[in-house]
Amino acid sequence: MKRIFSVSVENRSGVLSKIAGLFARRCYNIDSLVVGETEDHSVSRMTIVSSGDEQIMQQIEKQLNKKLDVIKVKTFEEQESVCKELMLMRVKFSPNNRKDIIETCSILGGKIVDMSMTYFLIQFCDSPEKIQLCIRMMLPFGISELARTGTVALTKCAD
Amino acid sequence: MKRIFSVSVENRSGVLSKIAGLFARRCYNIDSLVVGETEDHSVSRMTIVSSGDEQIMQQIEKQLNKKLDVIKVKTFEEQESVCKELMLMRVKFSPNNRKDIIETCSILGGKIVDMSMTYFLIQFCDSPEKIQLCIRMMLPFGISELARTGTVALTKCAD
Repeated sequence: MKRIFSVSVENRSGVLSKIAGLFARRCYNIDSLVVGETEDHSVSRMTIVSSGDEQIMQQIEKQLNKKLDVIKVKTFEEQESVCKELMLMRVKFSPNNRKDIIETCSILGGKIVDMSMTYFLIQFCDSPEKIQLCIRMMLPFGISELARTGTVALTKCAD
Repeated sequence: MKRIFSVSVENRSGVLSKIAGLFARRCYNIDSLVVGETEDHSVSRMTIVSSGDEQIMQQIEKQLNKKLDVIKVKTFEEQESVCKELMLMRVKFSPNNRKDIIETCSILGGKIVDMSMTYFLIQFCDSPEKIQLCIRMMLPFGISELARTGTVALTKCAD
């Protein structure tokens, strides 16, 4: 069972360390963690995806709420949210597979953001499942480098 | 001076806590941190953006290299890399500003990924500076919620 914790925290040094420490000490699993600023500079938002049984998920929520730097915790399931990830990937091309790479990239909704005589740098921005698919589809071409954010999520528009 | 640390680490629980702890204890500044899987499940990659003088930047690199869970540290400047961020934003619309929002979003390269009778959920995926611009341009419409990843970066293709 995957649960998403959207945590508004004070934008102070040491906050990330405290939150990560909470998960590490209690051996709670972190599938992905993303921390970024919000429109308000004094507030950062962490999106933490964790998995485990219902009891553990409730414990995590309680523990997060206890932290002084935490302003607000919102929890939601994967199905009721829009989840996105960003991935950058460097792929080597040759005259033989150049066209295939460009086509596959285009089908998958990727965008070539930089290139040289031998490499493409491709950006993918999609749901976590789709990002997995992109990796699987690009692997045969040879991925020379890959950097990926964790999941960022907001609840679906409901009204 | 901004420096990007691209750190390959063992995909183990507690690693994030150790790295975040290192920055917190020594009061190194973290501008942004992103941690995600790579094509190899046993390896995660952290992208940490930090700022400070050259001496501090060198200290951070040394300290990171000392950590047992760290496989490899690559450091590079913002200018020699492709830096991207992902942002999700919920914006309320009315019959009066609906068209303006759609147009502004399209000019900025945003993508409406969900909607209801009153809200748009918009995805932006761009350089950190462009993401700032998107926030500034969308603010007058009223941002009701915002979640943003940190910077993910790879060095530019050089050959």
